[in-house]
Amino acid sequence: MEKAIGIFDSGIGGLTVLKALAAALPLENTIYLGDTARVPYGIRSPETVTRYSFENTQFLLSQEIKMLVVACNTASAISLEAVKKEFPLPVIGVLEPGARAAVAATRTRRIGVIGTEATIGSGAYEKAITRLGSDIQVFSAACPLFVPLAEEGWTGNDVAELVAERYLASFRASGIDTLVLGCTHYPLLKGVIGKTVGPGITLIDSATETAKEVAAVLEKLKWQRPGTGAAERKFFVTDTPARFEKLGTLFLGDMRLSAEQVKVGGV
Amino acid sequence: MEKAIGIFDSGIGGLTVLKALAAALPLENTIYLGDTARVPYGIRSPETVTRYSFENTQFLLSQEIKMLVVACNTASAISLEAVKKEFPLPVIGVLEPGARAAVAATRTRRIGVIGTEATIGSGAYEKAITRLGSDIQVFSAACPLFVPLAEEGWTGNDVAELVAERYLASFRASGIDTLVLGCTHYPLLKGVIGKTVGPGITLIDSATETAKEVAAVLEKLKWQRPGTGAAERKFFVTDTPARFEKLGTLFLGDMRLSAEQVKVGGV
Repeated sequence: MEKAIGIFDSGIGGLTVLKALAAALPLENTIYLGDTARVPYGIRSPETVTRYSFENTQFLLSQEIKMLVVACNTASAISLEAVKKEFPLPVIGVLEPGARAAVAATRTRRIGVIGTEATIGSGAYEKAITRLGSDIQVFSAACPLFVPLAEEGWTGNDVAELVAERYLASFRASGIDTLVLGCTHYPLLKGVIGKTVGPGITLIDSATETAKEVAAVLEKLKWQRPGTGAAERKFFVTDTPARFEKLGTLFLGDMRLSAEQVKVGGV
Repeated sequence: MEKAIGIFDSGIGGLTVLKALAAALPLENTIYLGDTARVPYGIRSPETVTRYSFENTQFLLSQEIKMLVVACNTASAISLEAVKKEFPLPVIGVLEPGARAAVAATRTRRIGVIGTEATIGSGAYEKAITRLGSDIQVFSAACPLFVPLAEEGWTGNDVAELVAERYLASFRASGIDTLVLGCTHYPLLKGVIGKTVGPGITLIDSATETAKEVAAVLEKLKWQRPGTGAAERKFFVTDTPARFEKLGTLFLGDMRLSAEQVKVGGV
């Protein structure tokens, strides 16, 4: 199918998912929406996150997409079921693939999860993980400062180390052997997170796992794009594009980024 | 005049202004709107901040107010003139009072200003200060992590100290004797900010200065509330109230806080 894969995130974090998708499925067209006029979702209520997810999905549907990737852990944790129920197209979130990879990886049957206030507050990772392995113990922690740290570009300095120590120290005594990076910004802090929790702990990056899942679904449905020409990548944002385009390079490296501002919902 | 003073902020930070207002004018009714479904403003474009300011003002006007306080430095820096032009009621921002107090305080004619990316990027403090004293040199720095730090309640720990050192160290060699806390969250970090810039530097807290200005305007217009009964305080928010009510105590101390969710603009 020629149509694009639609991807939305609260802002720029979902670009880690886009990057993984582009690596796994280089020929697939993509349409990315970053809701930069309302970012971040991690501090908002479930009702508000769900409304924003619906509005984002409606916008992407107006662009003609064949499937939807909710590339935001908060939106996935809170609104994925509601989005699936409301919109009859294949919908993939970032939470389930991460949970599955974590369950496959753990030997100690103890898994750590870190994310935003809203994601951790929802308990969605615990549910997804224990559904896959009822004997697994889940240890979770909200890390509200990680997103602003990543956006400030402070991913390996002394501040990042100290903040990581505060949030993650308790994991060292928990016996976990697997830690889910339950927010699309966190892969940027992988180095300092890994150093803080110590060696021998597998870090699960949902982006890669999600890309694998998207590939599997397209394969199953035989919905892959037929052509061999270069994929088309469109980027939309709800605030003006300048900050998104600038910060985007933190996430995409040298992939060129040019976004167009659109109205989504009332914003 | 019996009518209330309307106050809006992007979220909870403006409560520092409300607190100062309640102390200076304990009999005045107040209606506070926190745009918690779209907070923070400090990372958004001027266009979007202005649109949100207009929508917030329209909501407060629907509640019948006699004057408007824009209790958000970002909204004041970017949209105050536009709001004044659009809405013909007395409008007071937090920027001008802070700038005036700083100019009155400085002896070295060197003033520091700290704020959000959007506030510092607008150059509004520089303009306001040098309009009042053309010989004054302004040194400014954006401190994006201060807001999340304050909301995390990390206002005096080692992380706060390290972040303050990174943002503020350069002020020590600048010769400033006055530093404007150009964001309504920053008074919560006053201790660590003062310690970092060193002794002998006057910290200007816009909240107190703004309350003085509001009192002066009401006095001049003879618009003070006539009664002596307890003031009525209403709080509205655009997301569900739970987080606002919880974090509000950081700002208001023991003042009771119960907010109602409303729709503002498209949100």
